[in-house]
Amino acid sequence: MNRFNVKQIMLTMALVCNVIVSGQTDEETVRTIYSASLNNGYSYQWLDHLSNAIGGRLSGSENAEKAVQYTKAELEKLGLDKVWLQPVMVPKWVRGDKETGYYFLEDGTKVPVNICALGGSVPTPNEGLRAEVIEVTDFSQLEQLGEDAIKGKIVFYNRPMQADLISTLEAYSGCSSYRYAGAVEAVKYGAVGVITRSLSLRQDDLPHTGSMGYADLPNEKRIPSAAISTNDANALSEVLKTSEDIELHFRQTCQQMDDVLSYNVIGEITGSTYPDEYIVVGGHLDSWDLGDGSHDDGAGVVQSMDVLRLLKLSGIQPKRTIRVVLFMNEENGLRGGREYARVAKEKGENHVFALESDLGGFTPRGFSIQASEQDYQRILEWKSLFKPYLIHYFELGGSGADIGPLKNDTNVLAGLRPDSQRYFDHHHAANDTFDAVNKRELELGAATMTSLIYLVDKYGFNQSSPIKD
Amino acid sequence: MNRFNVKQIMLTMALVCNVIVSGQTDEETVRTIYSASLNNGYSYQWLDHLSNAIGGRLSGSENAEKAVQYTKAELEKLGLDKVWLQPVMVPKWVRGDKETGYYFLEDGTKVPVNICALGGSVPTPNEGLRAEVIEVTDFSQLEQLGEDAIKGKIVFYNRPMQADLISTLEAYSGCSSYRYAGAVEAVKYGAVGVITRSLSLRQDDLPHTGSMGYADLPNEKRIPSAAISTNDANALSEVLKTSEDIELHFRQTCQQMDDVLSYNVIGEITGSTYPDEYIVVGGHLDSWDLGDGSHDDGAGVVQSMDVLRLLKLSGIQPKRTIRVVLFMNEENGLRGGREYARVAKEKGENHVFALESDLGGFTPRGFSIQASEQDYQRILEWKSLFKPYLIHYFELGGSGADIGPLKNDTNVLAGLRPDSQRYFDHHHAANDTFDAVNKRELELGAATMTSLIYLVDKYGFNQSSPIKD
Repeated sequence: MNRFNVKQIMLTMALVCNVIVSGQTDEETVRTIYSASLNNGYSYQWLDHLSNAIGGRLSGSENAEKAVQYTKAELEKLGLDKVWLQPVMVPKWVRGDKETGYYFLEDGTKVPVNICALGGSVPTPNEGLRAEVIEVTDFSQLEQLGEDAIKGKIVFYNRPMQADLISTLEAYSGCSSYRYAGAVEAVKYGAVGVITRSLSLRQDDLPHTGSMGYADLPNEKRIPSAAISTNDANALSEVLKTSEDIELHFRQTCQQMDDVLSYNVIGEITGSTYPDEYIVVGGHLDSWDLGDGSHDDGAGVVQSMDVLRLLKLSGIQPKRTIRVVLFMNEENGLRGGREYARVAKEKGENHVFALESDLGGFTPRGFSIQASEQDYQRILEWKSLFKPYLIHYFELGGSGADIGPLKNDTNVLAGLRPDSQRYFDHHHAANDTFDAVNKRELELGAATMTSLIYLVDKYGFNQSSPIKD
Repeated sequence: MNRFNVKQIMLTMALVCNVIVSGQTDEETVRTIYSASLNNGYSYQWLDHLSNAIGGRLSGSENAEKAVQYTKAELEKLGLDKVWLQPVMVPKWVRGDKETGYYFLEDGTKVPVNICALGGSVPTPNEGLRAEVIEVTDFSQLEQLGEDAIKGKIVFYNRPMQADLISTLEAYSGCSSYRYAGAVEAVKYGAVGVITRSLSLRQDDLPHTGSMGYADLPNEKRIPSAAISTNDANALSEVLKTSEDIELHFRQTCQQMDDVLSYNVIGEITGSTYPDEYIVVGGHLDSWDLGDGSHDDGAGVVQSMDVLRLLKLSGIQPKRTIRVVLFMNEENGLRGGREYARVAKEKGENHVFALESDLGGFTPRGFSIQASEQDYQRILEWKSLFKPYLIHYFELGGSGADIGPLKNDTNVLAGLRPDSQRYFDHHHAANDTFDAVNKRELELGAATMTSLIYLVDKYGFNQSSPIKD
C-alpha cells in the first residue's frame, strides 16, 4: 500500500468516525474540536503536498493552477454540499533569471550582494544597471536630498524594522511602504533604480521579495526595484559611511505578462437553519515564488480547509452556510478577494462573518476583530472558552486582505493572530518552506479557527438572525 | 577588528549607556526592560558561543568545564558585585561509540533503527545484546504478561505522548517514568534490556536521550537501556503486530565513571536596602550530549545572565540581592541545585524568591508559580503590566528542578513558561541546536524574567521585609 493510499484511507476513516456533539456544552465542543485537530487533523498533510509536491504558487503560474486543482479535488473528498471554482483574471509576473548584484569598493573590489526583484518590478537592461548608490531611511530624506543628489542614482532604502515592537506586524507596517512605493517616490527625483532593505528582523543573507507598484507612472519612467538581504544592507551601509561614490550593479530579467485566467477555490456546508447567511473562512492559495509558501499562506489555506473538515469530524451541523474560500492573487493584486466580494454582492449573499488566516502557521494567540462594539462584546463573551488553549488575544483591529472587500456596515471580520515573532524571518523569502512549520502549531491554529466559527454559527451576531432551535 | 572585539565593545558600551529609571512608572520600567532586551540583549550572542563554540555540556565533560569558565568570565565583564564558582561533585557518564541497533524480520532481513543510550545506562556486552522484543505501553502490562512472557527479552516501552494535551509538558509527564524507571520495572520480570520510545510528539528519526536510574539494583542486575526514534518505534510496533519472535540487537558502550569536581557559576548584584534577602534567577549549565543544548538549557542560562545585565542596562539598582546561578548537573543528578540549597541553608541565607528558565528559548507565555495564596495574589496584581507583551499565563504549579531544593514554607518559586509546542521536538536530541532558537523569542523570555525580578525586588512578598524607601 503506498503512502497516498494510506493517507486517503485515514482521511476517509476520520470523516466516518464523527463525534456526536448534541448535549455537549460549548466547553466540551471546543475540547472536541481541539482534540480532533491534534489527533486527526489533516492540515499538515495537505500542507506537505501543497509545499513539497507543488511548491511556490505565484499567480498565473503553472503551480498556482496545480494548487487550484489539488485543493478542489481535496475539498471534493470531504463530503461538502458544494465545491466549485470561481473564475478570476489575475496578473502574471515572472522572475526570469536569478538576480545578481554587486557593488564596487573604492579599490575596485566587487562585493556581491544577495538581491531579488520585487514583485511587479520592471527588469534592468539585459546587461544590468550600474549607478552610484544613495542611502536613505525614509521618504523625507529624499525630499531633503533633492534631485541634485539623487538624479541618475540607485536609491537604497535602508530602514530596519523596529526590533522593540512586540508585534512584528507593527514593525512591518512601519517599513512596507518603502518596498511598495519606493520606486514611485524615487523616480520623482530622477533615480534610475531602487534597492530596498529586506523586511525581516533577522540578520541573514536572504532577500525578501513582495509586491511593489508604479501607480500611474508611464512605462518608460518605471525603474527596476529589488530587495537586498539584511546582512548585505548592513554591510553596504557601513561602506557608504566612509566611501563616496560607491557604485552598485544589479541585473534582473523579470517581466509582467498579460493577465491570465485563474480561480478562487470554494467549498461549502449549507446551513441547516439559515442557509442564506454566509460565514467565510479562508486564506490565499497564491504565494511568492522564492520559497514554497508554507507559512504565507499555505498554512492559512490548509487550516481553512480543515475548519470545514473538523466541523464535520466533531459532528457539528452548522445552522448557517459555512464556506471555505481559497483566494487567488492576494500577493500581487488581490483580484481573488475583490472578485469574491463582487460576486457575493451581485448575488445579494449576506456575509455575516469572515475569518482569514494569513500570518503563518505559528502557535495561535487569538484574533484581531473588525466589528461594532456590540458584536465585539459578543465575541469577548466567548473568550473564557479559549483560555485552556492559551488563546488570550481578542482585540479590535484589522482582519485580512482577502476578506477585506466583504466588509459592510453590519458584518464582522476577523483575522487569526498567531505568534508573530518568527513570521518575518520567512515571509516572502526562500526559507518560507514546509520544514519551518510545526505540525502542532498549525493544528492548534486550525482548531482555534474552527472553534470561533462554531461559536459564531451557533450564536450569530447582533445583525444575524436570532437562534431558532 | 575581529568579531569578538566588536562583541566586547558592544557589550561594554551597552552597559555604560544606562537609562535612568527613577520617576518611571512600573509600566515605563517594564517597557524599558523589554526594549533593552530586544534592542541590546546579549542572550543570543552568549548562546551562540555556548552552543557553537563549546557545544553539548554533559556533567563532568571537558565542555562542561569550558562552559563554567566561559560564563564566569562573561559574568565578570558585567560589573557585578561578586562572581564566584561553587564547587560541587558531579556524576560523569560517557556515551562511548555511536549506538547501533537493528531488528530481524522473519525472512532474516536486518532493519536498522535509530537509538541512543539513555543517560546512566550500563553498556551492552561489547558484541551487543540480541534478544526477542516484547512491546508494552505501560507498567501494568508488564505485570499482566509476567515473568514467563518477559524473561530473557528486551522490553519495548512504546507509549506515545498524548497529542491532544495543549501543554506538551503534561504529555511528557505522562510518559517520562517509562524512560526513567523502565529498566528497574522490567528487571523484576527477568528482562535483559530496555528500548523506550523517544519522548517527542514529532514523528522523525531522532532518538531522544535523558536520564534513567537503577534505584538500588546491584550492578550485576542492571540492564542496558536505550531510546528509539518515534518513526522506528512506530515501524517496530507495526512489525510486532503480525510477526512473532522478532529479535532486536543493539550495542552501546556507555560508562559511568567516578564523580568529578565541577561548579555552579554564581554572580550577584548586592541589594541596596536588604542585602540579606536573596532573589535567585537561574538555569542549568550542563546539557545532554547529542545536540549542543541550546534550548535545554543554554537558553535558560543566557536569559538568566541577561537578567542581571538588563537590570543594570535599565538603570535599576535592586533593593535585594539578585543572584544569577548557573546550576551544574540538572540533567543527571541535580547535584548543583542540591548543593546550592545546602550551602544557602548552612549560611542562613534568606532566599525570598527564585525563578528558573528550563523549558526552552521559545516565546514566553508566563509563569508557573509555587507560592502561598497571598503571595500568588501579589503576583496577579502585576499581571496587567505584562499584557502588552502577550504574557498571560500566571498559574500555580511547579517551578524548576534546580531551584526546587530552595523551597521552604514562606518563600516563592517560579518557572518561566515559554510556548511548549516545539520543546519536545528538540529535547535531549541531536537537533537541540542553536539554529532552532529564535533571537527575539529568546530575548522576550529574558525581558519577561527581568520584569518579574524587578517587580519582586521592588515590592517583595508577604514574608519579605517591607519597602523602606
